[in-house]
Amino acid sequence: MEPFKYHVFICTQQKPPGVPGCTASGSEKVLEALRAEVAAAGLGDEVQITTSGSVGLCERGPNLIVYPDGYWYSSVTVEDVPELVREHFVKGKPLARLLNTDAAALKAEILENKRKFLARMKAQAGQDKK
Amino acid sequence: MEPFKYHVFICTQQKPPGVPGCTASGSEKVLEALRAEVAAAGLGDEVQITTSGSVGLCERGPNLIVYPDGYWYSSVTVEDVPELVREHFVKGKPLARLLNTDAAALKAEILENKRKFLARMKAQAGQDKK
Repeated sequence: MEPFKYHVFICTQQKPPGVPGCTASGSEKVLEALRAEVAAAGLGDEVQITTSGSVGLCERGPNLIVYPDGYWYSSVTVEDVPELVREHFVKGKPLARLLNTDAAALKAEILENKRKFLARMKAQAGQDKK
Repeated sequence: MEPFKYHVFICTQQKPPGVPGCTASGSEKVLEALRAEVAAAGLGDEVQITTSGSVGLCERGPNLIVYPDGYWYSSVTVEDVPELVREHFVKGKPLARLLNTDAAALKAEILENKRKFLARMKAQAGQDKK
């Protein structure tokens, strides 16, 4: 049961200065451009845009995911947005040049980043106890 | 192309004090319980959990969405989490009693909330100019 044709999640996770992440690589500007471009295309009621926390691909941001189809885009710039909206949401043809296409590699990368993150949190918790 | 069996988005949108929203209704605790329960079920690599901004159902939080299938849950409590994880993620049977089942009504509610939000933003911008 899906109320929207496309539900786009764009990572706007805040990170400490100097740490790579989608916000540091410009996701807030991409979000702004995406909202404007979708509205301009008259697709505001069909393409729902929601911000998200980290999707685990912090070195390759800005990242955005399109559900329910499951298209994972990385390294999206403001300049890419008009083409992305036109191709994917107007024409229904996902923009191949920005897509992750290897599901197993993507999963491995995300889970590895999750493990690193949890290890850092554990180490941090240990430090805090000292 | 979807790397995870289930990708859960749980709204943790911060709102001003007194404004209804998922965080005010306890979504951070639900998130914590969900992470613990998914890990305990040994599903940490299959069920990806990501926080999200508002999904537009602020009066009926905590809200969570399960993609790629597109199941929209509302008013999920910490007490619901074990059953939700067991039924949906272990057995593969979405938990009917917490699900939104009318896609058209859900879409109308979300779009109406979006319109209200944009009107408030516009009014606020007007006030700021004075």
